[in-house]
Amino acid sequence: MADQLPALPPHVTVLSGGVGGARFLQGVLRLRERTGSDTTVTVIANTGDDLWLHGLKVCPDLDTVMYTLGDGIDPARGWGRTDETWHAKEELAAYGVEPTWFGLGDRDLATHLVRTQMLDAGYPLSAVTQALCRRWLEPVHGSAVRLLPMSDDRVETHVVIDDPSSGERKAVHFQEYWVRHQAEVPAYAVVPVGVDTATPAPGVLEAIADADVVLLPPSNPVVSVGTILAVPGLRDALVTTPAPVVGVSGIVGADHVRGMARQLLEVIGVEVSAAGVAEHYGSRSAGGVLDGWLVDTVDGPLVGRVEGAGIRSRAVPLMMTDHDATADMVVAALELAGV
Amino acid sequence: MADQLPALPPHVTVLSGGVGGARFLQGVLRLRERTGSDTTVTVIANTGDDLWLHGLKVCPDLDTVMYTLGDGIDPARGWGRTDETWHAKEELAAYGVEPTWFGLGDRDLATHLVRTQMLDAGYPLSAVTQALCRRWLEPVHGSAVRLLPMSDDRVETHVVIDDPSSGERKAVHFQEYWVRHQAEVPAYAVVPVGVDTATPAPGVLEAIADADVVLLPPSNPVVSVGTILAVPGLRDALVTTPAPVVGVSGIVGADHVRGMARQLLEVIGVEVSAAGVAEHYGSRSAGGVLDGWLVDTVDGPLVGRVEGAGIRSRAVPLMMTDHDATADMVVAALELAGV
Repeated sequence: MADQLPALPPHVTVLSGGVGGARFLQGVLRLRERTGSDTTVTVIANTGDDLWLHGLKVCPDLDTVMYTLGDGIDPARGWGRTDETWHAKEELAAYGVEPTWFGLGDRDLATHLVRTQMLDAGYPLSAVTQALCRRWLEPVHGSAVRLLPMSDDRVETHVVIDDPSSGERKAVHFQEYWVRHQAEVPAYAVVPVGVDTATPAPGVLEAIADADVVLLPPSNPVVSVGTILAVPGLRDALVTTPAPVVGVSGIVGADHVRGMARQLLEVIGVEVSAAGVAEHYGSRSAGGVLDGWLVDTVDGPLVGRVEGAGIRSRAVPLMMTDHDATADMVVAALELAGV
Repeated sequence: MADQLPALPPHVTVLSGGVGGARFLQGVLRLRERTGSDTTVTVIANTGDDLWLHGLKVCPDLDTVMYTLGDGIDPARGWGRTDETWHAKEELAAYGVEPTWFGLGDRDLATHLVRTQMLDAGYPLSAVTQALCRRWLEPVHGSAVRLLPMSDDRVETHVVIDDPSSGERKAVHFQEYWVRHQAEVPAYAVVPVGVDTATPAPGVLEAIADADVVLLPPSNPVVSVGTILAVPGLRDALVTTPAPVVGVSGIVGADHVRGMARQLLEVIGVEVSAAGVAEHYGSRSAGGVLDGWLVDTVDGPLVGRVEGAGIRSRAVPLMMTDHDATADMVVAALELAGV
């Protein structure tokens, strides 16, 4: 039964990273369910965190979204599979094979095996993702969710760091910075290698152009949403779509900064605040990508500054404590979008 | 402390399949330990059972020998890893990915990942095997055991069967016949695909030419030892080596036929008996590969027939109930070899 909320519009498009994006999407889907909407949610996921590991193609953000929405995620960790075991990983370490710092679970491995074999057979990542989602998304959500990689081309986010063992300044894979070094080493630049020649995956530009609303979840503005926007054509699609574009701040107050966005924002010279990120994304009226920007209630004083940058803004609770709280946040985003 | 047994000679070479060969080798190594011998045991393992599975190179016989001698084998099953879990396999099945009938454990997977990645990087299987054995064999046996694949080239044993679902006669991978169909479908031919152009792996011919004794364990005479002998140059090496060559029957009486040798022997038209297999291998004095052949005590009446074929023979207990019983069997083989 639908409650008193307005229905979601028919086409909602969400640009997503991993954990934060996936939780936001759970709110979108909860709202879809609560309002009885016949909405198609298209997710354009970051693939800049993807890596080849032990000969397998691993796509952390695609998988986090897929497992989360398909009820296969470990809810405590927020990534990887529920009821996971780590025996293959233990054995790889016993062989002395690097890297040992990436969490490759036994159940998770099956996903990477299937993906790698399909890629080796010549299928593009978007087709592989669609095949994997037949197992995860269709049984739970029917055709309500479409998960698209931002690109079928290889893009790898590298971070220039001071290597803690050698002291040498060098570029490492984002995952090495993030997972291995826990973002605790000095970082100097974020480089999405390969993005210049990447093209958006099939359906990506259409999903933005034909959307009724485009939402940016509280995903990392540098290495998640930022990487998606760096794919040639993608930022333009957001700038020119007739749909309103509304984002949700991942930064709440001065202390709660989702993930390790703080370090990465500092690397690219963006002020670490809800208003700083909004200004970084920019107003669509001035060539940016945002029509609206939700900040948390504790950041109420920043609403005026965001609106001064030409971006509609409102302060609402942004903690995604459960799906219903997240759904309420999505309602606020839709209201800000005026849809 | 050495007991009263004669020491093993310095260079023992063993042609091995999987489970039976590995257990036999445990007896060889127990004897080495009991007699304080400074012997190098070189194992030339069948790779005709190897298969590509979910994009990974799986070498069942190499791994069974490696895990068994490295104390990593599941002793109850006789193959695969101890403390094994099957989560990746469950998940692959949940994705609907074939084949689902092959036992790929989570710990075992790590071996195949390391191997596949090294093969992809251009290392030959023999070098990969050596690298894997650094983990398994060196800590337990030092440099006492060298494990060599029969060939670095791809050889795949296929079996021509009547497909039980379609009724069609077709060639399937040996593992499909053996594991999936449990050798319970009509079989018409055994074809080691690729063997004609295969060459022995580095060290294989030398290990036979320079051995003090060559032993054939009670491995499958068709698809294990038979496939090894089919690699061009390998049979000739056995025919011409100055070392005596002694085999151990895998068939005990009329009923105890190790593995599914019965069906396979029938396919190639060999009598299913300890004497039938000896005659199939043939005497070195007549272009065959055997100087001696151990049969079980229950096959004592066959000794005369084997000797009539120009092969020294003796009847001793051949049940490998424990390592010491197997070591006693090895002593009998060495005595028959006259070393």
